[in-house]
Amino acid sequence: MQKTHYTAGILQYIPVFYVIWSDNLVTASELNVVQKALSEDKSLSKDEKKQLESWLNPKNPPSDNELKNWNHIVSNSDVKLVESETYPLAAFSQKVVCTYHEVCPFNDSLKDIEVNLGIQPNHYNHLFDVEVIQKSTSDFYDASEIDIILKGKHAKVVDGFRADLKDPIFKWDVHRNKEEFREVVLNQVKTLASKGYGAMAYPKEYGGKNDMEGYAYMFENMMYVDGSLTIKFGVQVGLFGGSIQKLGTKKHHDLYLSDAGSSKLLGCFAMTETGHGSNVRGIKTTATYDKNTDSIIIHTPGKNDNKEYIGNALHSKMASVFAQLIVDGKNEGVHAILVPLRDENHNELPGITVEDNGYKLGLNGVDNGKIWFNQVSVPRENLLNKYGNIKPDGSYHSDIKNPNKRFFTMLGTLVGGRICVARAGLGGAKMALAVAVKHALKRRQFNDSIKVQEDLLMDYPSHQLRLTPLIASAYVYHFSLDKMMSIYCDESQPDKRKVETQVAGLKSIITWYANETIQECREACGGKGYLIENRIADLKGDVDIFTTFEGDNTVLLQLAAKGVLSDFKSEFNSAGFTSVLKILGIQISDKLTTINPVYANKVDKDHLYNPKFHKHAFNYRTRRLTYTLAMRIRGYIKKGVPSYQAFMKVQTHILALGKAYSCELAYNTYCEYVENIDDAKNKALFIKLGTLFALQEIRTDAEWFLEQGYLGGTKSKAIRQRVERLCTELRPHIGVLVDGFGIPEHCMSAPIAQ
Amino acid sequence: MQKTHYTAGILQYIPVFYVIWSDNLVTASELNVVQKALSEDKSLSKDEKKQLESWLNPKNPPSDNELKNWNHIVSNSDVKLVESETYPLAAFSQKVVCTYHEVCPFNDSLKDIEVNLGIQPNHYNHLFDVEVIQKSTSDFYDASEIDIILKGKHAKVVDGFRADLKDPIFKWDVHRNKEEFREVVLNQVKTLASKGYGAMAYPKEYGGKNDMEGYAYMFENMMYVDGSLTIKFGVQVGLFGGSIQKLGTKKHHDLYLSDAGSSKLLGCFAMTETGHGSNVRGIKTTATYDKNTDSIIIHTPGKNDNKEYIGNALHSKMASVFAQLIVDGKNEGVHAILVPLRDENHNELPGITVEDNGYKLGLNGVDNGKIWFNQVSVPRENLLNKYGNIKPDGSYHSDIKNPNKRFFTMLGTLVGGRICVARAGLGGAKMALAVAVKHALKRRQFNDSIKVQEDLLMDYPSHQLRLTPLIASAYVYHFSLDKMMSIYCDESQPDKRKVETQVAGLKSIITWYANETIQECREACGGKGYLIENRIADLKGDVDIFTTFEGDNTVLLQLAAKGVLSDFKSEFNSAGFTSVLKILGIQISDKLTTINPVYANKVDKDHLYNPKFHKHAFNYRTRRLTYTLAMRIRGYIKKGVPSYQAFMKVQTHILALGKAYSCELAYNTYCEYVENIDDAKNKALFIKLGTLFALQEIRTDAEWFLEQGYLGGTKSKAIRQRVERLCTELRPHIGVLVDGFGIPEHCMSAPIAQ
Repeated sequence: MQKTHYTAGILQYIPVFYVIWSDNLVTASELNVVQKALSEDKSLSKDEKKQLESWLNPKNPPSDNELKNWNHIVSNSDVKLVESETYPLAAFSQKVVCTYHEVCPFNDSLKDIEVNLGIQPNHYNHLFDVEVIQKSTSDFYDASEIDIILKGKHAKVVDGFRADLKDPIFKWDVHRNKEEFREVVLNQVKTLASKGYGAMAYPKEYGGKNDMEGYAYMFENMMYVDGSLTIKFGVQVGLFGGSIQKLGTKKHHDLYLSDAGSSKLLGCFAMTETGHGSNVRGIKTTATYDKNTDSIIIHTPGKNDNKEYIGNALHSKMASVFAQLIVDGKNEGVHAILVPLRDENHNELPGITVEDNGYKLGLNGVDNGKIWFNQVSVPRENLLNKYGNIKPDGSYHSDIKNPNKRFFTMLGTLVGGRICVARAGLGGAKMALAVAVKHALKRRQFNDSIKVQEDLLMDYPSHQLRLTPLIASAYVYHFSLDKMMSIYCDESQPDKRKVETQVAGLKSIITWYANETIQECREACGGKGYLIENRIADLKGDVDIFTTFEGDNTVLLQLAAKGVLSDFKSEFNSAGFTSVLKILGIQISDKLTTINPVYANKVDKDHLYNPKFHKHAFNYRTRRLTYTLAMRIRGYIKKGVPSYQAFMKVQTHILALGKAYSCELAYNTYCEYVENIDDAKNKALFIKLGTLFALQEIRTDAEWFLEQGYLGGTKSKAIRQRVERLCTELRPHIGVLVDGFGIPEHCMSAPIAQ
Repeated sequence: MQKTHYTAGILQYIPVFYVIWSDNLVTASELNVVQKALSEDKSLSKDEKKQLESWLNPKNPPSDNELKNWNHIVSNSDVKLVESETYPLAAFSQKVVCTYHEVCPFNDSLKDIEVNLGIQPNHYNHLFDVEVIQKSTSDFYDASEIDIILKGKHAKVVDGFRADLKDPIFKWDVHRNKEEFREVVLNQVKTLASKGYGAMAYPKEYGGKNDMEGYAYMFENMMYVDGSLTIKFGVQVGLFGGSIQKLGTKKHHDLYLSDAGSSKLLGCFAMTETGHGSNVRGIKTTATYDKNTDSIIIHTPGKNDNKEYIGNALHSKMASVFAQLIVDGKNEGVHAILVPLRDENHNELPGITVEDNGYKLGLNGVDNGKIWFNQVSVPRENLLNKYGNIKPDGSYHSDIKNPNKRFFTMLGTLVGGRICVARAGLGGAKMALAVAVKHALKRRQFNDSIKVQEDLLMDYPSHQLRLTPLIASAYVYHFSLDKMMSIYCDESQPDKRKVETQVAGLKSIITWYANETIQECREACGGKGYLIENRIADLKGDVDIFTTFEGDNTVLLQLAAKGVLSDFKSEFNSAGFTSVLKILGIQISDKLTTINPVYANKVDKDHLYNPKFHKHAFNYRTRRLTYTLAMRIRGYIKKGVPSYQAFMKVQTHILALGKAYSCELAYNTYCEYVENIDDAKNKALFIKLGTLFALQEIRTDAEWFLEQGYLGGTKSKAIRQRVERLCTELRPHIGVLVDGFGIPEHCMSAPIAQ
């Protein structure tokens, strides 16, 4: 039995006190936890309590010598720290006491401190010079429970789909030759379509299940097989089939929809032109109605007016072509027309020229091509005429009189595709994170001079900081997109424009997030991440273009921001405008009054972890950016600057608003979702992930919050520390968190993730 | 002749006054410029001066109605704005006056304002409703002059090398099959080597020119052909040949150096192991001296101890193998030994197993492989014995007694390779920027409702902001690396450790910069950037791994930061440590006293553009981070936390210091360089690029500066505005700036850059 002058009552608290003080993370609410535990601890004498409480004063902390002595006592005990115990620190403390005193019962007050402060073995397992019985990951949470929460009501579809991916045809492999790769992917698409997955979002009468939400889940899971499969499948059933479903009428549905869903009829979606990427309204292809033959003539007028980057172009029999519809000499704006491309022997029809787009950075299993039309004639019936029709008498008719509104109504029906692209990006990010985390839980690197075994990559703070917030974001974005799709599918929702604005914003921030994540994972895996066999390389190449297609992110963010502004945009230059601004000004001022120096420097854990704080910060940012943006534009316009130029001058401000708005939306949606989780244990985990997301987001934009005086320097620093702390708190669960994504084992082919 | 109530004297100033006020960028130093011009303008009457001066008061600016009226007068003049005129705004003003008054001479005072404020046509060409005769880029600067400045004293080598790249063997093409691609690259390497470029850095007696600096320039230019060529060439002559040159002695040089340089002897550099990436000291391959046979036995002991990712592994006849040298039962640490791999028929020698590493994200023209050694015996002479030798009597000898120091001395000789990797990354970034800018100067997208022609991508503020600071960084890093290499090559420089620290930091920030740049360029080119033919895709894949190889960036940054700390690191736990900290503390406090609220909110242009401000900010950051880092580590250690754990706890702080230090170094080096440019016109351009780099860097880390109270919110905002403003000021010259990189036309194969 060793000796110490500390009583057993005091000694049992020394390990936890040492952990607290060596970390300097002592805020009022944390000290409260300890004080409360002390006051409820009946094993302590009055003197012992007094002594222990005296060591809890931030203004007069224990001296360095005292701390050194504590460390010495603990290290000398030669007790093993067993990380897998239920309450490792309380158990460890008990064993330390046992080496110095005869009586050493387990103390529940210590257990409470451990639980309530969220202290984890990896916070202190290096602090004492004792043997550590480590484990690389905790089983406190159950990955399958998390997966069930993520799948929600779509569990049946998702599980069935994942099981079907076991078919060897979906086994991942290296494909370098595009022709060979395209054949593989085409077969995969046909296989899925034949099982009914192609028609998933179509009405029941066309072989479908009317389940667009399930389709989106499927879309995300397809990324675990391959990006080319996801995109080619999306082009065939989502864009080509989707344009027939959404822009066509019953006659088109009856003729083509079942075959599009089953992939018997391969088709493409010919919108983008070489000369016009994001500016769809400016496309040049013409569709001229010829009354004499009762047909529509599709034509590519100029050198750069060909369709470009059209997925499925080389395999398709038919195209849904977007063109300027000219009826009776009048341009009625962009409409979609079904144009047969090839005959039964797969030869191009007269007037059609298709050219391979060649090799790309990724997605080489998708056959992108350029298409030219030389006076190609199709029947009048081929016009997808839901929103604009040519009547038998040759006159044009649309229920939507305003051409602008008509155009945006047609495009709006395709918003579902944007959600799916974001979902696919998210799937790519999840896959990359799973590979990187699994690797980091096996790979060891460097050590101190004493230890034989090197440290796990995952135990480096920089590694935790680079991966953990990205995992938290994956969870937040998962629920945001799920919710977005359910709103999009809800026919009773009247405000379609709002959904478009929201989708535009989320698609942008999530596809950017996906790219950033995959890149971070590549680097986190070092040279191993660079090998094609480990999957991250393909994900990187495939997901990269998600920031550009289905609407360039920069353009979409402006769309989102303009949506936020639109309620009073129409008031520009009118008398009403000023009054709207005044109201907004008052509301902003109201908010501003709450930002007194005390709030701006409130660093207590309870406050920083409170969703109310996060929501307030996000809301403040969106409103403030909206207000200042409106004021700037107004200022320019009042000085006579043309409005187009005024918008150009504030373009970077617009982009900032678009991001801020989307981030707020994502977080609020997530919080709503988490509120409804029944199980308290898992709910706590989800709340912690949300907190990490929010604090990391505030941290990333801290410059702006500091400039506004919303954050003081002390608070900003505290947030940074909290982010790092949350990452270490989540460290034991990081393996479970990536397993919770539910990526099927048969898809996890990366050797470093085995 | 139209009518206005303004006199000709007043009217001539109205366009420039409108530009000034519509932009709200009116700081004291800018107003000074205008006031000075007014006071020197002899054409003005006293009353006119008084009137004009009254419009220059920021506290009482011209009313919105007044401004609107000015716009009206200018727009009604129907004068064309000709951007190509030498002084477009002054000329425009003169023509406006001519439409309202009989007499309208050109006014030099207006010209002075235009020049001194840096007002460019793209600042105001949308402001008035007049026809604009645009040009996409200015010829005010001469790209070839810029190229000459960048090449400096290496012009002859660079020009010769660039001309030699005209050989059709270097023509870029798509290569998908790795075997075919590797043959192409091997031939390219041999071609360059046969022309003497391989031996460039070797001594004259081995066919070389002793020109390591010229070699680095060549290395950067090779990226314009292909990344695989650059890396394979670097492995052959820089790593394999370089290890013989730097770690071997005359006997090795005589036997192998000429053949390594001419590529007659193909070799590889076998350092990295599967189990040990960045931790070279921990490699497991053994090299055991056998006294009986006077030979060294090379052996791979365990499953993951094989060499991995070894470039040139499939083509090599010999390897420079890094292994634990065991002599007489004692491990003398890591040494390099030359080991023949294959016989004349290219069959692997007994005991050697080589396996292809397979496809990678990029660099598929480089044959990376894994190598296993099974008791392979080589003569004692094959030990590269410059720093550690086995004497004929079988005893080990080294002049460097400390094994640690010996290890770092050996590794230190390879620091040149890190500079070259950063140079190659920089070359990749320059290439991507050139492609993206050339595309943006041709590509048009969107327009307002009136104009027929859509705007050039390059005219969007967000596009300027995303590309221009990256171009500025390319210039800054160019000179930093140039200087670094010249210090590295200067044998008279005594402090090799300092060079290592600096190179470690610069390699990290520059390769990260390169990746970020290439990604930004990919997105800036939209779908076109995704096509392999446009080169950015390959650059992205190739450069990606630069952040990992030749030292993982995260590890290197810690090395850099520890270098900064090292002067007092050895003092830890000793009495002297405290005193060192005290001195540092006093110096920091001195600095802090200068950051009074006035300084922290000084937003005048003269101040913000002053290199003294930038240098002060960077220096403050490095010192402050060093000081707080030292204090934190000291705090942990005083509490008894083991030092290894203390360093783990501050890892993210260490990384921040590494970045800060490297950034400061890069900027200071650049400023020194620019000081020495003779030609005032070009010098001004380089100064502006430096200013943009510095302000963008401060802006990027504004969170930290704000937290410290170094920046106030107003100043932080002003810096953001200045960055945007500098981007528009550089807009007319952006074409020249990327042409100034000197990328040979025969290498610019991207169709979108034609």
